[in-house]
Amino acid sequence: MKIGLGQINPTVGDLAGNSARIIDLIDEARHEKADLVVFPELCLTGYPPEDLLLKPKFIADNQSALEQVARAARGLAVFLGFVHQDKGALYNAAAFIDDGVIKEIYHKMHLPNYGVFDEKRYFREGNKSSVVDCRGQKIGLGICEDIWAEKGPYEEEVGLGADVILNINASPYHLGKVREREALLKQRAEKYQAAFVYVNLVGGQDELVFDGGSMVCDPRGRLIAACDQFREELLFVDLERDRLENWRWLEAEEEIYRALLTGLRDYVLKNGFGQVLLGLSGGIDSALTLALAAEALGKERVHAVFMPSQYTAEQSYRDARAVAANLGVELAEIPIKEVFAGYLNVLQPNFMGRPADLTEENLQARIRGNYLMALSNKFGWLVLATGNKSEMSTGYCTLYGDMAGGFAVLKDVPKTLVYQLANWLNKKRPVIPEAIIKRAPTAELKPGQTDQDVLPPYEVLDPIMQAYVEENKSAAEIAALGFDAPTVARVVALIDRSEYKRRQAPPGPRLTPRAFGKDWRLPITNHYKE
Amino acid sequence: MKIGLGQINPTVGDLAGNSARIIDLIDEARHEKADLVVFPELCLTGYPPEDLLLKPKFIADNQSALEQVARAARGLAVFLGFVHQDKGALYNAAAFIDDGVIKEIYHKMHLPNYGVFDEKRYFREGNKSSVVDCRGQKIGLGICEDIWAEKGPYEEEVGLGADVILNINASPYHLGKVREREALLKQRAEKYQAAFVYVNLVGGQDELVFDGGSMVCDPRGRLIAACDQFREELLFVDLERDRLENWRWLEAEEEIYRALLTGLRDYVLKNGFGQVLLGLSGGIDSALTLALAAEALGKERVHAVFMPSQYTAEQSYRDARAVAANLGVELAEIPIKEVFAGYLNVLQPNFMGRPADLTEENLQARIRGNYLMALSNKFGWLVLATGNKSEMSTGYCTLYGDMAGGFAVLKDVPKTLVYQLANWLNKKRPVIPEAIIKRAPTAELKPGQTDQDVLPPYEVLDPIMQAYVEENKSAAEIAALGFDAPTVARVVALIDRSEYKRRQAPPGPRLTPRAFGKDWRLPITNHYKE
Repeated sequence: MKIGLGQINPTVGDLAGNSARIIDLIDEARHEKADLVVFPELCLTGYPPEDLLLKPKFIADNQSALEQVARAARGLAVFLGFVHQDKGALYNAAAFIDDGVIKEIYHKMHLPNYGVFDEKRYFREGNKSSVVDCRGQKIGLGICEDIWAEKGPYEEEVGLGADVILNINASPYHLGKVREREALLKQRAEKYQAAFVYVNLVGGQDELVFDGGSMVCDPRGRLIAACDQFREELLFVDLERDRLENWRWLEAEEEIYRALLTGLRDYVLKNGFGQVLLGLSGGIDSALTLALAAEALGKERVHAVFMPSQYTAEQSYRDARAVAANLGVELAEIPIKEVFAGYLNVLQPNFMGRPADLTEENLQARIRGNYLMALSNKFGWLVLATGNKSEMSTGYCTLYGDMAGGFAVLKDVPKTLVYQLANWLNKKRPVIPEAIIKRAPTAELKPGQTDQDVLPPYEVLDPIMQAYVEENKSAAEIAALGFDAPTVARVVALIDRSEYKRRQAPPGPRLTPRAFGKDWRLPITNHYKE
Repeated sequence: MKIGLGQINPTVGDLAGNSARIIDLIDEARHEKADLVVFPELCLTGYPPEDLLLKPKFIADNQSALEQVARAARGLAVFLGFVHQDKGALYNAAAFIDDGVIKEIYHKMHLPNYGVFDEKRYFREGNKSSVVDCRGQKIGLGICEDIWAEKGPYEEEVGLGADVILNINASPYHLGKVREREALLKQRAEKYQAAFVYVNLVGGQDELVFDGGSMVCDPRGRLIAACDQFREELLFVDLERDRLENWRWLEAEEEIYRALLTGLRDYVLKNGFGQVLLGLSGGIDSALTLALAAEALGKERVHAVFMPSQYTAEQSYRDARAVAANLGVELAEIPIKEVFAGYLNVLQPNFMGRPADLTEENLQARIRGNYLMALSNKFGWLVLATGNKSEMSTGYCTLYGDMAGGFAVLKDVPKTLVYQLANWLNKKRPVIPEAIIKRAPTAELKPGQTDQDVLPPYEVLDPIMQAYVEENKSAAEIAALGFDAPTVARVVALIDRSEYKRRQAPPGPRLTPRAFGKDWRLPITNHYKE
């Protein structure tokens, strides 16, 4: 049996565009004489459609799009995800179409409602496993979470004689997830002695990134086909003949780098922006963001602005110029000194002689934010925020200042990982000057400032943050891992009290098992202290 | 039987404070010789605890707090909500304590997972109804949604002989909700011929407001006791003897006004702010916000700043001064002209001779945002944003400009309702000058500007917005209600494309069945066009 894995990049809400793309690939699959072509979970609507699902017209339009796909599926079988309305309830569903006719509709049985998932908000659970006959083969149907559940539909389907299992997904990326999927798929294939066909989405949708990595295991649990990560692909696999030797997924740094490129590119392009803009400070975060933007979009679509203050070191200017030159991006310069002085002058009577403090630091960051937003307004460029996860955790960032922007590329990248990615990138092509990497991180908002004036070293901060944010560990548990207890308490307190800032932060691509997005729902008003 | 209704205002995460408050009221109930005192759903943790529930230590601490409450409950019975961990699962639970001993733990059977609710993210559903014996009475237990479900636990409990039914709640406010609850309670009491005791929270928690309105129906479906809305109260009711004649809930305007006061006051105070600050423009939104702030917090805790530009009319200044004077709030003045000119001067080479457009308007709004944030930083005052729901819907507001702030008081108040509230308020006490109410709304960001240059009249916009946002109606359905189809299309397009702004907006109190908060989860990247 020849199966096409349709690893596509749909856009949420684009029913016409998504169905047109699916129909194109069906035509290609027919031309390649495939028996069956398989597309991801909810590929017709894009994933996650969120509250579009509450609009009755959207559901009806999705049904029409499905019928159009079905009519186009002459001469082969197609399996794809859509939203099914049945007796007043909605189902996360998939249609098995054969030669233009919808033969079976499967309803997802296991609805994830944790982490970034809210499927029980919209869907009712299915309660029926499905086996279809196709070209003399018995094929078992299922969707995403169904394969992770211990008591999924597949056991019953195999019992009914299914020897090919289809599992379609909208499985969001986090580092190493593809290897978890592969291990599970192999285990399931071996256990049930059936071929397992796993098809996933690819692309960015707001904060979510889908990495694809569609694959097929034979009944002995051996990988016999695999799609690349982060790339649209229509891959054909002959279940009886194909073999795959020594398949390797991407290494960690490249995987994360590609995830960042995907999330950034799709946010920019799917939202109709031609060009982007960022403030280049001479520090490592904006340097890495610039490198990512130039690679994701092409250097001609990227604008960088250097906005020096009276505290900006000559080295910052030199380093900013060097990284812009390395990437071939033109660097504009807008000084903030005059306007800063203007504000302070006007505010003098209101400040009533109080000493300079964080106010003056934040004000400088906000002037920069205003310049970026003014250029964004004037030219239609999307502003990229350049802050990292360590800052976003501890609130070491200015609301409406360096946090300003439409997309925060490094929002889920801890500072230590920023360095790791910069070093990895430099090995491929030396774009980020060593001076930037070696220099102590500084916001340059007052004389002689460094991040470590107020934060623990990032090598200490990051693992504490990760244990608290990504693993829900208590301060006592983190200290028991060997960290200094007062430092842990300080970091935890900073994270807790920065919730109000995160609530107003731009979205950014999710790379870890828990980002500051849909999978982080902490109250702002919160008196809990451990 | 004498029952105390403990309509309290807990704070999320404040396990020590909440349990201390509960114990105080238990002592008071004992002193009043009550047989039983009933507290709201999850009153120990506050509602909603959100992802605090994912912290194992938080669950353990909540269990300890419950045990402390139980020990204090000597000589009477207590029913209250807490989180129960049982065999690895979490339950939205309630404990029935009698004379210091936990006699029964009930698990909520119907978990809401729609609108603002995410209970299936955290909790497993209970599957057992509970009847306890207390002072010779059989009492049936249940929590919140259990009473709304057609097949709730109460039917079984009444079958087992329960003649008093307890229903504890964390039921968020929206306009008129208390009347819906009352009608349901009467219907249930009559149907089951049992006394129904309904206890609800009061207070603000981020975007949610709880209005209380706890009440008791006798077995003939007659209201025999009711607590005020929006006020902590420990109300005692004698089931056999008490009667209540001609009870009336608040009228619409007062109900909304009190909801706004509650949401604002609790956000400010529970987050530890002593004082607040807002920009007073001479328009109606900031005037109403100032009136609310002065009443919620006391005028001495409220700071107002007038920030004129070259486009500010003399009338604006006069009106701003008048409303500040009426409310007894001191009005500072910070002109934005100089800094605006400074920005334009610096930006001139970058703007390359392009004509003035929205950029210059947004820039003025952002300068004001910066001044407010600078004062906030310097003095620790919380900035209140003053925009309304009509603006938040259509994107007629500036990100980091007039949208800047910690709490957006009128975020869920459409412009027509702003006027309605101002007129209602003036009848009690004339604080908002008639000139403000009569004048055409304007952002004063360019000469001769009014809102209606780009928006339909608010009498047209608001009902279209409400049909689209609050009722999920399609553009065609709204036009069929009698609205001009191109106008509907324009409003819908404005709402759709402003999602990115709303994602970075501050929280504000929810007053309608659908606010731009937890109950509005639309993707930013979204190609759906009807």
